Amino acid sequence: MGFKPVKVGICGLGTVGSGTFNVLQRNQEEISRRAGRVIRVEQIGARRPNPLADTNGTQIVADVFAVARNPEIDVVVELIGGCDVARELVLEAIENGKHVVTANKALIAVHGNEIFEAAQRKNVMVAFEASVAGGIPIVKAIREGLAANSINWVAGIINGTGNFILTEMRDKGRAFEDVLAEAQQLGYAEADPTFDVEGIDAAHKLTILASLAFGVPLQFSKAYTEGISKITADDVNYAEQLGYRIKHLGITRRTDAGIELRVHPTLIPEKRLIANVDGVMNAVLVDADAVGPTLYYGAGAGAEPTASAVIADLVDVVRTLTADRDNRVPHLAFHPSRLSDLPMLPMEEVETAYYLRLQAAENPGVLAEITRILADQQISIDAIMQHGTDDQLVPIIILTHVVKEVRMNAAIKAIEALETISGEVTRIRVEILDAN
Amino acid sequence: MGFKPVKVGICGLGTVGSGTFNVLQRNQEEISRRAGRVIRVEQIGARRPNPLADTNGTQIVADVFAVARNPEIDVVVELIGGCDVARELVLEAIENGKHVVTANKALIAVHGNEIFEAAQRKNVMVAFEASVAGGIPIVKAIREGLAANSINWVAGIINGTGNFILTEMRDKGRAFEDVLAEAQQLGYAEADPTFDVEGIDAAHKLTILASLAFGVPLQFSKAYTEGISKITADDVNYAEQLGYRIKHLGITRRTDAGIELRVHPTLIPEKRLIANVDGVMNAVLVDADAVGPTLYYGAGAGAEPTASAVIADLVDVVRTLTADRDNRVPHLAFHPSRLSDLPMLPMEEVETAYYLRLQAAENPGVLAEITRILADQQISIDAIMQHGTDDQLVPIIILTHVVKEVRMNAAIKAIEALETISGEVTRIRVEILDAN
Repeated sequence: MGFKPVKVGICGLGTVGSGTFNVLQRNQEEISRRAGRVIRVEQIGARRPNPLADTNGTQIVADVFAVARNPEIDVVVELIGGCDVARELVLEAIENGKHVVTANKALIAVHGNEIFEAAQRKNVMVAFEASVAGGIPIVKAIREGLAANSINWVAGIINGTGNFILTEMRDKGRAFEDVLAEAQQLGYAEADPTFDVEGIDAAHKLTILASLAFGVPLQFSKAYTEGISKITADDVNYAEQLGYRIKHLGITRRTDAGIELRVHPTLIPEKRLIANVDGVMNAVLVDADAVGPTLYYGAGAGAEPTASAVIADLVDVVRTLTADRDNRVPHLAFHPSRLSDLPMLPMEEVETAYYLRLQAAENPGVLAEITRILADQQISIDAIMQHGTDDQLVPIIILTHVVKEVRMNAAIKAIEALETISGEVTRIRVEILDAN
Repeated sequence: MGFKPVKVGICGLGTVGSGTFNVLQRNQEEISRRAGRVIRVEQIGARRPNPLADTNGTQIVADVFAVARNPEIDVVVELIGGCDVARELVLEAIENGKHVVTANKALIAVHGNEIFEAAQRKNVMVAFEASVAGGIPIVKAIREGLAANSINWVAGIINGTGNFILTEMRDKGRAFEDVLAEAQQLGYAEADPTFDVEGIDAAHKLTILASLAFGVPLQFSKAYTEGISKITADDVNYAEQLGYRIKHLGITRRTDAGIELRVHPTLIPEKRLIANVDGVMNAVLVDADAVGPTLYYGAGAGAEPTASAVIADLVDVVRTLTADRDNRVPHLAFHPSRLSDLPMLPMEEVETAYYLRLQAAENPGVLAEITRILADQQISIDAIMQHGTDDQLVPIIILTHVVKEVRMNAAIKAIEALETISGEVTRIRVEILDAN
């Protein structure tokens, strides 16, 4: 216990920066009893103080790069967000021999390969637990807790805003736009909600999870991303009648042909524990060969949950300060010289089951036409539901068995070309999420 | 990556020993890509080979102590179970400078303080992830993942047999004895089911969780333990009508007066995620000040799930081989010189809500008598349910608000002394499990 305090520089004093500062102060004694030494915030890089954090007595500099160059600082905590400045800042900190902790999912997903290579060269750690699922220690769980396993797949509710919207749509029968407006008022969703509801934020996190699970380089550009803005209250209802819930899932799965990497609305059986994760909460379900399914649940965002992960990383960094580099936990779980070159699978090659909703004219031949098209594409039907209505258009719901996406694309194109079908076919993928 | 293979000796080749051997063989390449070096089983200590594991080519010695003395062995994996021989074996391995990995919850809960002190003296690690909740990396989550937090409480379904029995009772209306007999046939429950259904196994695990969460020495003898053998199908039904499920929970909570450490059947709201953890699965819910509630779910027992945790520990041990001792993760999460002396709270001092079921004679004054007794003990009533019946005895169900156990004991004693009350009062504690 004869170690000197570790000196930390926090860059960015917004919500997460303030939360990190506050938790470090409040739990200082308990954290040092665990870490074996004091973790002290030596300097903060921020344009101005934040009333959310009582930073009196801590030096604040306006230039975050001054923190990365400060010879007194051992660890730089990057909490400014965004990609461009954050990338420069992190690379400069590494170049100066400093360890880095970041909560920045976009930065890691897009520039992680470059950053980890630089860190490897300079013998420093870049820790990023807070970048995926906020306070849930999912990076640690996959990278260390499941180290014995060959992982089959990972499926996660990793965007709280999207899950809040889908939960409200189901619980209260509300429309997507209506709940989104409320989420924006509550501060869950950004003014520009695209990152959340179109699945980009989730795809950043999923990209990181895929690399940790399968030992492949980060490949954000290969992710398939589909948002929840087209889900209707009707779909939520029909799903429920069939025993399913609709969740916006990030799914990554290893197959012999390659790795699936996809974010989209998904029907999952209501009996699955993850189907019952509601509101803004996150959860990640991992299926692995030895342990089977494990699930990790908690707050995926917010000042103090994210701070919890940032500080856990700080403690980890502190602990490895005396460790030989090659004995440290590798950034992407697998040693950099032993990553896999398994390709990412294009969406057309992915195999999954489907929920289809279509509007058909009242016409005795229409079901025959549809089922013929599906049969031509070798798509077999699991369930079919035709709802009575007073309208001239009858909604038809079809659940299919597993088939390759390229075949389903062809079938949908053919169905939409039928004269008896009105508008576009709604297609939502279905995952049973049972153990392999 | 220039390290030599790490040489492991496995003591005990039963279910878990065979599973550990098999997973190490099957996933050898993937594990070494993560760990940075090969983990090789050098020797097995077992009376005889086990057909479940293809140990051809691996040296098997009948005397497990020979493994602990083998100068070639770096890490001894103790999987023989029980307390006496296991304790001697682990202490001898430590004395010989070997690191130890164990899945033995009884050993850690009862002899952990002595073992960790010896390990500290000899500068070796004793890792025990597999001792709590099987394959769920809960020790790592609490000890490292939540290191930033002041933990409020931990509540876990940490005995799969008990959870299987309660799930069957609820789903199928079966009686306790009936399901227990099936669990024994299925191999879930031991021939002597006491450890499982009376909560001793859960109390071992809870004792470990409490020390990790609150930084106190292991104190198994202070645990309050109550089994599920008195739960009836009626209780399960009434609980459901009131919006609750009955789970056999281990609960440890930090209060100003001391630490609660208790295993007992518990009513929890059916909406909680942990209320939906069914069958033999385990889950641990942790409430902490920064991150809020987090939950960890997975298989709590079985050959390969337990092996998953044993091998994760092996990888951790391998990684810390070059680390300074004081920079390692402390055995009980907090540095041994900085443990807390917060006392364990006797059960009489615990505050909780209650479900009471009593059989009253059809008598207009009986409710007045009961509510008077509760009022005398300052116990306020949350809900009351009196079921019509053709019998002369009417079942009365009462949910109370939170009160100190000592007051409830007095109230129950007074109620049982009433002439209008038949037999004993059934008392099941109620926990809402909301965030602090």
